[in-house]
Amino acid sequence: MTVIKINKNSKGDGFKDFVYWLQEDLNSVNKLVLDNLTNTSSLISELSNHIINSGGKRIRPLLTLAIAKLCGYSGSRHIILASVIEYIHTATLLHDDVVDNSKKRRGKKTANFLWGNKSSILVGDFLLSKAFRILISDGSLKCIEIISRASEKISFGEVKQLMSVRKLETSESEYLEIIKCKTAELFSAACQLSSEISEISTDIKNSLKDFGIHLGVCFQIIDDTLDYFSEEKVFGKEIGNDFNEGKMTLPLILLYKRSNDKEKQLLKYLVNKEKLNRNDFSHVIEKMKKYNVKNDCLDKAKHFSVMAKDSLGLLPKSEGKVKIINLIDSLLSRKK
Amino acid sequence: MTVIKINKNSKGDGFKDFVYWLQEDLNSVNKLVLDNLTNTSSLISELSNHIINSGGKRIRPLLTLAIAKLCGYSGSRHIILASVIEYIHTATLLHDDVVDNSKKRRGKKTANFLWGNKSSILVGDFLLSKAFRILISDGSLKCIEIISRASEKISFGEVKQLMSVRKLETSESEYLEIIKCKTAELFSAACQLSSEISEISTDIKNSLKDFGIHLGVCFQIIDDTLDYFSEEKVFGKEIGNDFNEGKMTLPLILLYKRSNDKEKQLLKYLVNKEKLNRNDFSHVIEKMKKYNVKNDCLDKAKHFSVMAKDSLGLLPKSEGKVKIINLIDSLLSRKK
Repeated sequence: MTVIKINKNSKGDGFKDFVYWLQEDLNSVNKLVLDNLTNTSSLISELSNHIINSGGKRIRPLLTLAIAKLCGYSGSRHIILASVIEYIHTATLLHDDVVDNSKKRRGKKTANFLWGNKSSILVGDFLLSKAFRILISDGSLKCIEIISRASEKISFGEVKQLMSVRKLETSESEYLEIIKCKTAELFSAACQLSSEISEISTDIKNSLKDFGIHLGVCFQIIDDTLDYFSEEKVFGKEIGNDFNEGKMTLPLILLYKRSNDKEKQLLKYLVNKEKLNRNDFSHVIEKMKKYNVKNDCLDKAKHFSVMAKDSLGLLPKSEGKVKIINLIDSLLSRKK
Repeated sequence: MTVIKINKNSKGDGFKDFVYWLQEDLNSVNKLVLDNLTNTSSLISELSNHIINSGGKRIRPLLTLAIAKLCGYSGSRHIILASVIEYIHTATLLHDDVVDNSKKRRGKKTANFLWGNKSSILVGDFLLSKAFRILISDGSLKCIEIISRASEKISFGEVKQLMSVRKLETSESEYLEIIKCKTAELFSAACQLSSEISEISTDIKNSLKDFGIHLGVCFQIIDDTLDYFSEEKVFGKEIGNDFNEGKMTLPLILLYKRSNDKEKQLLKYLVNKEKLNRNDFSHVIEKMKKYNVKNDCLDKAKHFSVMAKDSLGLLPKSEGKVKIINLIDSLLSRKK
């Protein structure tokens, strides 16, 4: 039985195609990311290796590589900058897993589960600092600014998210602000780094910055929707994590807004309940089906994907642009 | 009853004098540190305010101010750079308290105890990023390099320390390497920032860099010694924390090295014991007295304090130099 449905725009095509297009550069990035950790302590290199090799899609560094290619950049700095993006992303994953008390990520045991919270916090700090050290060797103040801004926004977004936990009244715009900070700013930074080192106009630079934001928001909405509507074996991690943790993501926000008083009461009870069971979660899914939450979430993700595509409008037609647009479609229709 | 004994070189004189000398600049730094957090989320500003105002000595930002004065710097960038140092320090304190599971710091409840580990991790991340953002506005790539290097070293040192927990065989040189990274690099960075913005020779810049390292090592040895030999009411936090956590600091390293086989066995038992009691700790203190551990630790701290003082040898005689040398003596003889 095939779980992942493949259509002409699905990940089966668009994403693989995208990776194939950038494979050579991606190999260089992977090598650099690991090489830069070999001369540190064994704990740092083992823990980092574990999370870096745990089957992530490398979507963020791939964006850096893609935009460099799209802008006709011909040097090798994009490899270094993509590795910086991967370090920042890895650092945030390490801290997120501690904050969320996660035991699994992408079907594998988390670093905090294997090495303990302390190690994850400190190695996360190390990777963040390492990213800045690499940027300084690269030497562009503008690139450092891009990353430090993203880094500040990420932690700001995470704090905002933490403050909204179990607050069913969280608004859709608060949610959008949170995911813009915690996810989309790094997508945008990944694009900005490459546009910064390329010889392109300010208008196109601004477009690519927007492109990253829109794509990141789209990506996170899909992620949050899959946490309710994907099957575990497809999604690769336990389903219903967000609900368990009381995270106010789009599906739950929409459900609460659309629920009647009685349903609202029940949601309040569930979201504050000590230990949720499978039935509780099934009930929530049933109500979400009643109110068409899944489709509406996907429509909203699509809305941002269209904005992302249109952000590329100033760039001339090219093979790269087609690859990137296909990537967007594949992310939109991804099942995991 | 006066708990703190004051002699002509003690903190009572040297430290107060030092702060008085820099009071105006310090007020500006305190204001800037808090002002920069007002436009963030309430959690970030409340949590940061709590830890920043929890009675720390501000020794690191004070060093930045002192070195600026010592080098005849006449602008205002040292205020900004001192605030960066305070942010970095605060970020590491927040993460340290989570890693050490501390409930009290300087006699007050820790942020992780009051707001939870999650908030402390994320606000720590935010402050670290904020520090880089401020540095970028300042605009000096060299200053960013100084801070990112220190930041990398700090987390590297913390990781090393974590790996040495309960390892009684840890060597004195491993210990020195750890405290150099986790403490002295930031002391050094605090000095380097001010020497960077001043018009002084490369030789003096290098001296000031060394000065910070030596002073930081001295400071940490005293800190680690006080954790065994200070009285709680003086030290301001629970005594014996390091031993409880199995941290391999200098007093324990020296004790283990000097113990006979039977004593070594008992130390191994104690360091791995689930819950230590007051008697266990008293026993350790007794053995430390037998082997003259306290005095030898203080002598080693003094050794580094002498190196710190001599690092200032290239600088001409001045009021500032006297203040700084008195500060070193006061740190060496501090009781808390």
